[in-house]
Amino acid sequence: MTLPIETPAVLVDIDVARRNIRLFQDYADRHGIRVRPHIKTHKLPQMAELQLDAGAIGITCQKVTEAEAMVDGSGRITDVLITYNILGEAKLARLARLNERVSLSVVADNAAVIDGLAAHFARAPRPLTVLAECNTGADRCGVATPVEAAALARRIAGAAGLRFGGLMTYPPAGGTDRVQAFMSEAKRLIEADGIEVPTITSGGTPDMMQAAEAPVATEHRPGTYIYNDRSLVARGVATWDECALTVLATVVSVPSENRAIIDAGSKVLTSDLLGLSGYGHVLGRDDIRIDQLSEEHGRLVSDGPIGLAVGEQLRIVPNHACVVTNMVDAVHIIEGGKPKGQWPIVARGRVL
Amino acid sequence: MTLPIETPAVLVDIDVARRNIRLFQDYADRHGIRVRPHIKTHKLPQMAELQLDAGAIGITCQKVTEAEAMVDGSGRITDVLITYNILGEAKLARLARLNERVSLSVVADNAAVIDGLAAHFARAPRPLTVLAECNTGADRCGVATPVEAAALARRIAGAAGLRFGGLMTYPPAGGTDRVQAFMSEAKRLIEADGIEVPTITSGGTPDMMQAAEAPVATEHRPGTYIYNDRSLVARGVATWDECALTVLATVVSVPSENRAIIDAGSKVLTSDLLGLSGYGHVLGRDDIRIDQLSEEHGRLVSDGPIGLAVGEQLRIVPNHACVVTNMVDAVHIIEGGKPKGQWPIVARGRVL
Repeated sequence: MTLPIETPAVLVDIDVARRNIRLFQDYADRHGIRVRPHIKTHKLPQMAELQLDAGAIGITCQKVTEAEAMVDGSGRITDVLITYNILGEAKLARLARLNERVSLSVVADNAAVIDGLAAHFARAPRPLTVLAECNTGADRCGVATPVEAAALARRIAGAAGLRFGGLMTYPPAGGTDRVQAFMSEAKRLIEADGIEVPTITSGGTPDMMQAAEAPVATEHRPGTYIYNDRSLVARGVATWDECALTVLATVVSVPSENRAIIDAGSKVLTSDLLGLSGYGHVLGRDDIRIDQLSEEHGRLVSDGPIGLAVGEQLRIVPNHACVVTNMVDAVHIIEGGKPKGQWPIVARGRVL
Repeated sequence: MTLPIETPAVLVDIDVARRNIRLFQDYADRHGIRVRPHIKTHKLPQMAELQLDAGAIGITCQKVTEAEAMVDGSGRITDVLITYNILGEAKLARLARLNERVSLSVVADNAAVIDGLAAHFARAPRPLTVLAECNTGADRCGVATPVEAAALARRIAGAAGLRFGGLMTYPPAGGTDRVQAFMSEAKRLIEADGIEVPTITSGGTPDMMQAAEAPVATEHRPGTYIYNDRSLVARGVATWDECALTVLATVVSVPSENRAIIDAGSKVLTSDLLGLSGYGHVLGRDDIRIDQLSEEHGRLVSDGPIGLAVGEQLRIVPNHACVVTNMVDAVHIIEGGKPKGQWPIVARGRVL
């Protein structure tokens, strides 16, 4: 079926997105886990509202300007966690303004960040809530041991202008056991210091349906689950029917029997591989590989005759949905199989 | 030296960019090659004007909306080649409007595209110039043989509303000999049909200093040469001092002795590898590898102690400059080593 949409375009099937939201919210409700979706996947206030309507307690953002765009875009977003070490006067000033508008939390994994926050918020009208970030195996940010987490908790709790909000981690896939072990010990140490641990927040879509196996965690922050993508299908976590986001592309050249070129390249699909081979899945054509991207061209190859014609539309599930929504200014919403207009991606490109 | 710029940010040293423009223009002038830079690298009317001032005859764009943004942004851009198969009524209408404003050419590598252009431009006030795209080994778009190129030339020349503009190719690195062989034979065949071949245009920064070794080509379309990047340094085509574009990032965490995290991830540096290992080069720190990116975090690792402090600024040469300018809304211009303000990247994200 040819859609009356100029290509390349990013489509979101809102019926599928609603079902995806519901699926995890129901699981979390059954297990008493609070849901705080990461908006990096959609970057849309409207999608955050669907998540809040389903029962989410607030949202997660990665950067201050992303949080600003989301709060500006919806009067119903009133609780925001920014899972990032925030540094520098410009960002601290933005943060203080945002802290006047919503219930705001940030994280810190080192003393320099805590001291910067403390110096700024000591003179602010409202204290800032700060969680200690813990490394449970992803080896990105986060303190390496529960003892260090407890030291951060003491530093936060002892700072004028700051309030200790609990513990945060972004575990690697398969890291649920480590979350349970690390967080239980850290909580014990912090409570032994007489400090409360209001929230323990963990994240990730791949393990979300095992979140209850780390019962110490009170909150989960899935992002990609709303749209799903080829990486999650490859992990067995989602099916193609559960992929809400697709890239609509047009065949612009069929220069040889087993090669076709589409008008979507790395400026839409991105070069993210996430451990996969190729740059996306052409729906209905398991025999085709997207083996090469340049900025505006995607190359499709097949072992046998590719059987595509110039002008034909294809729908592609990208490897990684979150990065695709950062590449375009708007998504086309599909409802009941029909285009329902475009939503501007207001939190796109907010890297500050 | 700490720059008074909020990070992450994309910086362009305009002194270096001017030298890079001059270097290739001088080579091309010595060899009688016309220069038509591809603007995909900078996406900035101001940079195109520097290229025109140096002697470029016009610009190359990849998409129609990119060309629109460039022409809207500078009254001095009057000659545009769009090296793309253009299809569909919406794009053809845009193309026809642009053809009223500037000297415009496009390419085609198949009959369906030519027939679409011909049907639209048969009723337009001005004919559209169309070049035949040839595959000289990159195996992306382009006809496979000089005989097929000659057939396209006849089809274009015979269409009311179209004018045959010549031949176009984007060769693979090291493909100069193939350009010479393919284009010489195609030109011979087309001229034998009584059709003139006004332009033969080839492209690419990696081989640009060997462009004269394909003397059949009249024009070269380098893109990346204005900024250079890590991929070109790796090929021995540029030095770090010749890299005009850098990403300014701040260390936000040093969670272990040999690991640091910066505030630039794939939303700035992108996941483009271009055959390299790692995601960029930290200037002055050959011992550091950027071994992993998530959207907002870059992970730096070293064999020995990494010796970085939270809050420290780093400058990174990305693997691929062109894709980085697509990730941010503006670049910070550096002149004489000092920030001189921001230029909005008006042709960013123009994928239609």
